[in-house]
Amino acid sequence: MKRLIEGLQKFQEGYFSSHRDLFEQLSHGQHPRILFICCSDSRVDPNLITQSEVGDLFVIRNAGNIIPPYGAANGGEGAAMEYALVALGINQIIVCGHSHCGAMKGLLKLNSLQEKMPLVYDWLKHTEATRRLVLDNYEHLEGEELVEIMVAENILTQLKNLQTYPAVHSLLHKGNLSLHGWIYRIESGQVLAYDGVLHDFVAPQSRLSYLEPEFNLHPNCPLTSYNS
Amino acid sequence: MKRLIEGLQKFQEGYFSSHRDLFEQLSHGQHPRILFICCSDSRVDPNLITQSEVGDLFVIRNAGNIIPPYGAANGGEGAAMEYALVALGINQIIVCGHSHCGAMKGLLKLNSLQEKMPLVYDWLKHTEATRRLVLDNYEHLEGEELVEIMVAENILTQLKNLQTYPAVHSLLHKGNLSLHGWIYRIESGQVLAYDGVLHDFVAPQSRLSYLEPEFNLHPNCPLTSYNS
Amino acid sequence: MKRLIEGLQKFQEGYFSSHRDLFEQLSHGQHPRILFICCSDSRVDPNLITQSEVGDLFVIRNAGNIIPPYGAANGGEGAAMEYALVALGINQIIVCGHSHCGAMKGLLKLNSLQEKMPLVYDWLKHTEATRRLVLDNYEHLEGEELVEIMVAENILTQLKNLQTYPAVHSLLHKGNLSLHGWIYRIESGQVLAYDGVLHDFVAPQSRLSYLEPEFNLHPNCPLTSYNS
Amino acid sequence: MKRLIEGLQKFQEGYFSSHRDLFEQLSHGQHPRILFICCSDSRVDPNLITQSEVGDLFVIRNAGNIIPPYGAANGGEGAAMEYALVALGINQIIVCGHSHCGAMKGLLKLNSLQEKMPLVYDWLKHTEATRRLVLDNYEHLEGEELVEIMVAENILTQLKNLQTYPAVHSLLHKGNLSLHGWIYRIESGQVLAYDGVLHDFVAPQSRLSYLEPEFNLHPNCPLTSYNS
Amino acid sequence: MKRLIEGLQKFQEGYFSSHRDLFEQLSHGQHPRILFICCSDSRVDPNLITQSEVGDLFVIRNAGNIIPPYGAANGGEGAAMEYALVALGINQIIVCGHSHCGAMKGLLKLNSLQEKMPLVYDWLKHTEATRRLVLDNYEHLEGEELVEIMVAENILTQLKNLQTYPAVHSLLHKGNLSLHGWIYRIESGQVLAYDGVLHDFVAPQSRLSYLEPEFNLHPNCPLTSYNS
Amino acid sequence: MKRLIEGLQKFQEGYFSSHRDLFEQLSHGQHPRILFICCSDSRVDPNLITQSEVGDLFVIRNAGNIIPPYGAANGGEGAAMEYALVALGINQIIVCGHSHCGAMKGLLKLNSLQEKMPLVYDWLKHTEATRRLVLDNYEHLEGEELVEIMVAENILTQLKNLQTYPAVHSLLHKGNLSLHGWIYRIESGQVLAYDGVLHDFVAPQSRLSYLEPEFNLHPNCPLTSYNS
Ligand SMILES: [Zn+2]
Ligand SMILES: [Zn+2]
Ligand SMILES: [Zn+2]
Ligand SMILES: [Zn+2]
Ligand SMILES: [Zn+2]
Ligand SMILES: [Zn+2]
Repeated sequence: MKRLIEGLQKFQEGYFSSHRDLFEQLSHGQHPRILFICCSDSRVDPNLITQSEVGDLFVIRNAGNIIPPYGAANGGEGAAMEYALVALGINQIIVCGHSHCGAMKGLLKLNSLQEKMPLVYDWLKHTEATRRLVLDNYEHLEGEELVEIMVAENILTQLKNLQTYPAVHSLLHKGNLSLHGWIYRIESGQVLAYDGVLHDFVAPQSRLSYLEPEFNLHPNCPLTSYNS
Repeated sequence: MKRLIEGLQKFQEGYFSSHRDLFEQLSHGQHPRILFICCSDSRVDPNLITQSEVGDLFVIRNAGNIIPPYGAANGGEGAAMEYALVALGINQIIVCGHSHCGAMKGLLKLNSLQEKMPLVYDWLKHTEATRRLVLDNYEHLEGEELVEIMVAENILTQLKNLQTYPAVHSLLHKGNLSLHGWIYRIESGQVLAYDGVLHDFVAPQSRLSYLEPEFNLHPNCPLTSYNS
Repeated sequence: MKRLIEGLQKFQEGYFSSHRDLFEQLSHGQHPRILFICCSDSRVDPNLITQSEVGDLFVIRNAGNIIPPYGAANGGEGAAMEYALVALGINQIIVCGHSHCGAMKGLLKLNSLQEKMPLVYDWLKHTEATRRLVLDNYEHLEGEELVEIMVAENILTQLKNLQTYPAVHSLLHKGNLSLHGWIYRIESGQVLAYDGVLHDFVAPQSRLSYLEPEFNLHPNCPLTSYNS
Repeated sequence: MKRLIEGLQKFQEGYFSSHRDLFEQLSHGQHPRILFICCSDSRVDPNLITQSEVGDLFVIRNAGNIIPPYGAANGGEGAAMEYALVALGINQIIVCGHSHCGAMKGLLKLNSLQEKMPLVYDWLKHTEATRRLVLDNYEHLEGEELVEIMVAENILTQLKNLQTYPAVHSLLHKGNLSLHGWIYRIESGQVLAYDGVLHDFVAPQSRLSYLEPEFNLHPNCPLTSYNS
Repeated sequence: MKRLIEGLQKFQEGYFSSHRDLFEQLSHGQHPRILFICCSDSRVDPNLITQSEVGDLFVIRNAGNIIPPYGAANGGEGAAMEYALVALGINQIIVCGHSHCGAMKGLLKLNSLQEKMPLVYDWLKHTEATRRLVLDNYEHLEGEELVEIMVAENILTQLKNLQTYPAVHSLLHKGNLSLHGWIYRIESGQVLAYDGVLHDFVAPQSRLSYLEPEFNLHPNCPLTSYNS
Repeated sequence: MKRLIEGLQKFQEGYFSSHRDLFEQLSHGQHPRILFICCSDSRVDPNLITQSEVGDLFVIRNAGNIIPPYGAANGGEGAAMEYALVALGINQIIVCGHSHCGAMKGLLKLNSLQEKMPLVYDWLKHTEATRRLVLDNYEHLEGEELVEIMVAENILTQLKNLQTYPAVHSLLHKGNLSLHGWIYRIESGQVLAYDGVLHDFVAPQSRLSYLEPEFNLHPNCPLTSYNS
């Protein structure tokens, strides 16, 4: 705690002093362009890995970067997302998982958590679709590889879950929103992005020329016959 | 998005390269000492304002830094907290609100949100205790001052809510956990900490000499008569 | 009721007598190949419009052929679907809406239902994503046309919701399940099927040559890099 | 799927063509006289067994023809029933179970379902009252006989549950609603109806002369002393 | 508070001292014969009005003596009832309403409570069936008479709700449980009991000769055809 | 039942007749000064042990005198409390546990209840914080001593839970409410009250001179800096 309080002072005398104008301006309102959803894990720092400025990222953090389907939970996830899209007009969402995720390791031994960490157990049930898919389709994997695939598939589950929310559903249809799935690898500092065409996670740099969002299941146009 | 992807590259070539050992070590496990609960607001960056290293803070972020009472919500808040205390052995929790909080402004005009942002409306109901207290006890305030008191009282509400969780309740009793309430002021870069004795938010530097946690409602000892 | 009881007798003496073998066989177990989800509306008779035999269709019927997202409801929808996929091994799901649907008309004037039909009001909230999308994207429509587009978009919402269920998510990934969206038009006796490529509802006969399911968002293969 | 699509064509060219007037009339509104609640089982076809016309039966179908008590579930059952009674003015409800019901067999081995079909497990909990009653009162039965009694008692449980709904409660009091319990036997094509006086299921033909509903717990009059 | 603490002393020196044996015996276990469900209202004292001894009545008290249908609530009502029937073997339940009940007056102006007493509002929704029935069937009443009928009908609603609980459902079938509905009139000190045959509340003394419970909807025998 | 009905008569002819004026007055409204929360246990009679008059105590009774945290339950507890504070203006709450409490014994063997008394099991989960604290902090106790500490700690848990309710939170801040924790010992007729300073349960007589409530975590004043 002592170190933390010294940090506060260091921040104010250092970074804050040299960015006084930015903070003055931010005190009148925020205008982030990205909703960043990532794990509570202490090793994941969204601003650091994207080298973003204060004010750039609206951030949701929980164990396992999970967004329960619309209506399934009454926690903060849906509210923060709705606020980001409706009140702030954000039009990009990134769901960012990470290697060595404790939540995903927990998902692999779910039943053992029920007694000791009942709230974690209940929470991970929201991504049961990930667990079922991995158990049914990746029987040949184990150990680290299984954790990695759990991390990857968990991100895709959340991208599906996100689309059940009214605001997301409507904005995707309008063509005013794009969804992205990222994996951050702690050991290499590398980030991979989901590519819907390749159905794989690839280096995002390779896709910079694309104009469309990496992941857009719903064509951005109304049903044809009702618009002629 | 382009800027973000360039940021990823900059991070990997810059910060990551110069801290390769730290990341290598972190890839084997995290050992954060603080659970930091703050708002999703893009202007709040916990690692920046505390000048913390990667790996130091386990972070929960939602709109309004709210922790619903135990059993009241099935979102990610309770699970992440339980994981922090039980799996990671963290023994300090900081609830950090901030000035100009959009969630607190929303709380002041709650009913107007029901139609346009129903999920935000439902979510803010979890801190109805704050709203009721402020409406009943601060009738003489308005405008910015009212937002500020909402921010401050909201933090105290969460400190009470936290204490209804089994893990928190038990660790507080053991004397192995301390709870802290912070306000971060965007315009001044300053952080104030709740002082239970003064019942006010004060500069935390002034309290560095204290050994006890700033906020500890439950004496850290068993009921006397059952321990003699 | 009198007419109904006469019908029972007529059935037993007529259809049942002439299909005694089929019923004898069915009494040992059912082996339907289709899960058919349609409205409770008395004008929709799934067996009639598909000219299916007894034993062919496993049927879920509720107001508006709605399937809430996984975890959002504890009614019979999720259970019947899980039973169809896991216990019966069904691998085709049809969500069949219909023209002039009272539930969809209700969705257009949702708030007026709260007092008089509170359970209908609460139920339709599960397809709020449809309402939001239509209100935001089809402002130029009204009357019958608006009802029609509500019917059509509502089917697509359910196809998204279905994919949040563990069993659906896993089977789609395996390539062992296909999802179909149908509209039945009472006035013409015609059925249109959703075509994901055209993003429109078309005569299903035109698509008989296709081998793939009409609607398959998730490629039926594992993530590439984990299978080489 | 191919067969199904051919069925659609057959329906349109056959039944629909010869009933064009009925469908034209129905396109202007439905006026069903019966709410029919039955199992999703593919062997149960309500229109077939009652030889009803299109437009006669408003139908709810789920696994086990279960109606959870009022307030216990937020699925489609309560909404469809409320719509039937309030919007359509229906005044007869039939809960129709059937022999060899997979849901009732599941109820007999409930705990074994928890892992493999968690949604079915949760759903059957809504008819725990049936399970408890059968376990406590029919210890001498086993095998097929036990399934049969489960089917029968399950219907009576739903008749009680129905009465907890505001619309049902009020209409029963008014004398404007009757509730019926039916068992459909797949192997014989026979339907038995619950007789509240005999407390048994009997051939409904034998009761055609009755004027009163077969099952009416609440006398259709106001409390005496408040009406003199 | 002072008066209360003096009362404690008075109790210990008076009543307790003169009943020391009873209390000594009770400290080894309770054996109540009645589950008494009444309002939290300070004017209702179950032991006083029945002149019962300490140890006679197991008591549930809440606002409006409401028992939500099985599965509809997760408060203390269902648990206390289950404990009474299963752990203590109690076989008589009395639901006792009372004249001038504030909860019933609240039910008559339900919507006005939503803002000021949201928890009361939500709670009274559990007896919406009473409100609907009274609004639909007693339009000719107003004022005190309307409150009285609300009190009376509310008791009957709870008797129906009780029957949806597994333990009640099973014991009623066994013939090992009877349900009673009482109205206590504060102004006259009189208690009226519901008489299912007369469908009215009458002086209970007049019914002492009866052997059967006053209210038993479910005949206490198994379904006939399964027991021959 | 016979004895009970004779009791009613005895009450009316005895106590009621001699207190006719009190009851006449009470029929025009109640004005209790205390909200008394105690166990459903038949051995606990709040009016008897406090020697209170009819009209003095507004009473909530459930198994284990538990008040779930705000938002965690939709049973009668929160509503009755809200009614007491908001509608009746009560400003003293007593949570009164008792020795040999069956609910607390159940809490010690919680998992064994799941099958036989599932509603009791679910209900006791609301005081999981008590169970966790006792298991973690009183390993050296067993048998009767363990039950006693469970009873005592359970009361303190409820005092914390109470503070998460909007009405309580606001009134405590205003200084218009005090919370008290009592233990009633059946075998001695004695009541002990929680003393926040000593952090122990002591004879309440010893504390009569105190002006402040025994238990007040929140200083009864606004945050200092916002009131100068
Ligand atoms: Zn993680
Ligand atoms: Zn904020
Ligand atoms: Zn419809
Ligand atoms: Zn069935
Ligand atoms: Zn009352
Ligand atoms: Zn007790």
